[in-house]
Amino acid sequence: MTKYRTVHGGTLRASDIGNEVTLAGWVAKRRDHGGVIFVDLRDASGVVQVVLNPENVPAPEETLRSLRNEFCVMVTGVVRERPVENKNPELATGEVEVGVSSLDVLSTADVLPFQVDERFEADEARRLQYRYLDLRRDRMAANLRARSTAIRAMRRVLDERDFLEVETPTLVVSTPEGARDMLVPSRLRPGQFYALPQSPQLFKQLLMVAGVERYYQIARCYRDEDFRSDRQVEFTQLDLEGSFWDQDDVLETLEAIAAQVVKDVRGTDLPRPIPRMSYAEAMARYGTDKPDVRFGMEIVDLGSVFTGTEFRAFAGTLAAGGAVRAINAGNQGLSRAGFDKLVEEAQGLGAKGLVWMVGEEDGSLRSPVAKFLSDDELSGVTAAMGVEPGDAVLIVADEVEVVGSVLGDLRLQLGQPDNHDDLEFLFIVDFPVFERAPDGGLAPAHHPFTAPLSVEEMRSSPETAISRSYDMVLNGAELGSGSVRIHDPEVQAQVFEVLGISAEQAESRFGWFLEALRYGTPPHAGFAIGVDRLVSILQNEQNIREVMPFPKTQTGADPLTGAPGVVEDGQLDELGIDVKPEVRAGWSEGN
Amino acid sequence: MTKYRTVHGGTLRASDIGNEVTLAGWVAKRRDHGGVIFVDLRDASGVVQVVLNPENVPAPEETLRSLRNEFCVMVTGVVRERPVENKNPELATGEVEVGVSSLDVLSTADVLPFQVDERFEADEARRLQYRYLDLRRDRMAANLRARSTAIRAMRRVLDERDFLEVETPTLVVSTPEGARDMLVPSRLRPGQFYALPQSPQLFKQLLMVAGVERYYQIARCYRDEDFRSDRQVEFTQLDLEGSFWDQDDVLETLEAIAAQVVKDVRGTDLPRPIPRMSYAEAMARYGTDKPDVRFGMEIVDLGSVFTGTEFRAFAGTLAAGGAVRAINAGNQGLSRAGFDKLVEEAQGLGAKGLVWMVGEEDGSLRSPVAKFLSDDELSGVTAAMGVEPGDAVLIVADEVEVVGSVLGDLRLQLGQPDNHDDLEFLFIVDFPVFERAPDGGLAPAHHPFTAPLSVEEMRSSPETAISRSYDMVLNGAELGSGSVRIHDPEVQAQVFEVLGISAEQAESRFGWFLEALRYGTPPHAGFAIGVDRLVSILQNEQNIREVMPFPKTQTGADPLTGAPGVVEDGQLDELGIDVKPEVRAGWSEGN
Repeated sequence: MTKYRTVHGGTLRASDIGNEVTLAGWVAKRRDHGGVIFVDLRDASGVVQVVLNPENVPAPEETLRSLRNEFCVMVTGVVRERPVENKNPELATGEVEVGVSSLDVLSTADVLPFQVDERFEADEARRLQYRYLDLRRDRMAANLRARSTAIRAMRRVLDERDFLEVETPTLVVSTPEGARDMLVPSRLRPGQFYALPQSPQLFKQLLMVAGVERYYQIARCYRDEDFRSDRQVEFTQLDLEGSFWDQDDVLETLEAIAAQVVKDVRGTDLPRPIPRMSYAEAMARYGTDKPDVRFGMEIVDLGSVFTGTEFRAFAGTLAAGGAVRAINAGNQGLSRAGFDKLVEEAQGLGAKGLVWMVGEEDGSLRSPVAKFLSDDELSGVTAAMGVEPGDAVLIVADEVEVVGSVLGDLRLQLGQPDNHDDLEFLFIVDFPVFERAPDGGLAPAHHPFTAPLSVEEMRSSPETAISRSYDMVLNGAELGSGSVRIHDPEVQAQVFEVLGISAEQAESRFGWFLEALRYGTPPHAGFAIGVDRLVSILQNEQNIREVMPFPKTQTGADPLTGAPGVVEDGQLDELGIDVKPEVRAGWSEGN
Repeated sequence: MTKYRTVHGGTLRASDIGNEVTLAGWVAKRRDHGGVIFVDLRDASGVVQVVLNPENVPAPEETLRSLRNEFCVMVTGVVRERPVENKNPELATGEVEVGVSSLDVLSTADVLPFQVDERFEADEARRLQYRYLDLRRDRMAANLRARSTAIRAMRRVLDERDFLEVETPTLVVSTPEGARDMLVPSRLRPGQFYALPQSPQLFKQLLMVAGVERYYQIARCYRDEDFRSDRQVEFTQLDLEGSFWDQDDVLETLEAIAAQVVKDVRGTDLPRPIPRMSYAEAMARYGTDKPDVRFGMEIVDLGSVFTGTEFRAFAGTLAAGGAVRAINAGNQGLSRAGFDKLVEEAQGLGAKGLVWMVGEEDGSLRSPVAKFLSDDELSGVTAAMGVEPGDAVLIVADEVEVVGSVLGDLRLQLGQPDNHDDLEFLFIVDFPVFERAPDGGLAPAHHPFTAPLSVEEMRSSPETAISRSYDMVLNGAELGSGSVRIHDPEVQAQVFEVLGISAEQAESRFGWFLEALRYGTPPHAGFAIGVDRLVSILQNEQNIREVMPFPKTQTGADPLTGAPGVVEDGQLDELGIDVKPEVRAGWSEGN
């Protein structure tokens, strides 16, 4: 194949016995048996055993003795059957070994900061600092391959459907909207800045105006948030958009993509169609807009059971327009103390309290509040919740939003599988147009370019109006979201009006985009899927960092290269900017 | 297909006659023939004629009359044969038209800033400001498609060869090397900066250390240079690298990529193998390391013709170690004044002068200097240059580098085709390791991680030592470059030493990278191809902006969005930076 190898070592099988081969790779393990050295040689294809007998290898014995883990070597030798007692049925190459007749050490390795063998743990800071060694581990190498495979599968589906891949700019204009922009100072216009894109949203809509009709891009996006464990300052999304498209066209395309990715990465067939659930139903049954439907434990409304109850906590809540709802958490084997802890947790999640009930063998319910409830109410709970002996029923009475969010969280805590062996995709549809912003005003639930189902409804009842937007959810994680866009500048103006954005403000923020809409914009719709999250779930990883080749830490640092860093003043001068004196002062104080 | 269309209009043929279809697209042209309106309807597939007869279309006549160019419409009707006199053999859909029975105006268009019809010119500033209209033009739409096709072809070749696509970070550490870095201030580490990558060079080498073995990426890169007409601050390259690879492995892969791209974009077969030429030969024959070999006019050395000449200008040059070389520019039909102009141009290019000779019908040479030359010298020139009557021979006598560069430039000026109908790929190999930097010292000809052919040669004669690097050239443009990399930290240290970079400096600049080389780095080699340049040549475009969806102007501005722009002080505060007072002062003065 190349001057360094005739074949990949990991592909050798019994059928290769007798062939002379040249292999190149890394010493994964080295054992010395009475002067004969057995090496597990690793390359991108896997591992094969090579045997270095000093009598056959014309290399100084010192070289043989000096071989250590992660040396990069080239060997030539003949493939032979392993002695029966040495065969390893767990290894693809386990029937054979290579009797080496020539050894070249291509490069040596210093003492390793950690062993590449995955049985040895290493802390993440160290793994990131020596990412090039970390990526040699089977698990990480498999993650890199899976990521490449997933992206290839996405592309194949979209290429077959005549999508154009178009690269939108990454040095864009900063818009004072949403999350913080990352800025790039301009040298040719000192004191001015580009922004790195949070998404290609407006550019892909411009491409629709431009008549591209079918667009996709595997796009690098940037988000300057305070880091959470599963966020990165730069991330990758599959971004797509279609003209003369409606919601169904988007969802069907996404379904084809999901099926191909699952097929190529997991080797399994995704049942289709992917179920759809309205936002309202998801909130009622699961207390979240990204339900994990791999398990039941659904939220049940007990309002009708407790209509007219004399139990003051429930009666008061219902009278105030709140809700009494519950989940049947099954047999959690909780002691009294265990339940007390759950109550505390529910309070930590924002509930005023939590009522628990446990099904007894005789069909009755044991609960601290049982004495305040009527027999009808207790049997009503048993029936509504399908209580079996041992089952724990957890009831929250509070404002509707609080009940949903607390029970939704408890449900995940008590029932969510700790792996992603099973995959349950779900589309959430019929999101509201607006949500309450922290300041009490209305904010777009998706973004302000999302089409309302009905402009009249949006104007007459903005709080409940439905939008033409949708999310894709996998195992309780939001993979991405999309919408039918507004293509009529009049509708766009009305959305801004309801949002309290004046025509002047809209013009100054998005004027160039609003103008584009005025030149024969086709109806269009699209979506964006987070590649990092999707691949991490497919690979059964808890953190997206495990499927990124060179991620940053939670403070945005790269322990390998030392980014970000201090730069020379001359560079800043050219850009017309300077580090603030108080920040510099902080440096000299050693902070 | 969707609720807006049953078929793409541009695909309709005689075989569709009689079918009812629904089409969606844009009004490309509109003609009113006695109240019946003929519309050329354009969509991504092409154009088809649709006929709106007010008697058949249940839309207000006002709507029909109001239809203007670039309105976005949906029509339903029956495909019918055009009257014979109206058939248009130049149009794929020219045999048919659609008799419309229903019209929906999906969106209207304001008065256009320029006509989309390409027969109407528009200046580039306006085209960029309304790029979404500019991209509707056939030529621009074809360029976008070609770019997508080219990238898809590259991926297909590499996917079939088991390359992994890996995304390297775009927020990296700034290294005080080479071109200026574009900087991104960090909010979590105020006063510190990321850099945008000039290329993924070091990360792809780390991937080789990590055992990836075959890597590629269509990578966005950044270069903060003063803009030239064919440069952009962000650009795209196909970046690839392989372990256990040598130069031949890289060139063979590049050849396969080039052939597939040409096949898919141009529909033609690229003759293989792609010729290889040494740097030394290219400089001698063409005076450049990126020769356009579509035409001859090669540089010929006349040193042996003029050995012992009495013509002082030549004799002096040769005695001083310079060269006397010439091109036969063929019959340029130049007058005396025309030659005088060429002499001036040669001087403008840095030559002390230019000697011209023209072949006469009788086989003699006419030249202002003929009287200073012997008959043997004149016939020597005729023979060496293969002069035919009318041919113009242009001779430059100067330092070797000047002679090559001036004749190379004149050659292009006088002979280079003004289109890219023919494609001539070429590999230039055996580049020198170092070149003279403007300050007189040595600088790496490629980059400091390029392997020398021989470490001994590099140390003993650094000025002439050959490196294992190579370029790919197409029609006189450098498409990209690559090299076998240094995988031995000892060799790397010696290269730094020859470059005059101390171990300390090397450690502070590249310490993290040099450390990585110490953990069993495999031999590796790679390349990067400029996608923008390649696609622009394939599409016969002179400027890469024509094949970029949303390029910047030469001052790095985007006339569409207004990027870059001024940002709010609060944003800068968070980043620990500020615009310099003198720059702000400039603003308030209205600059």
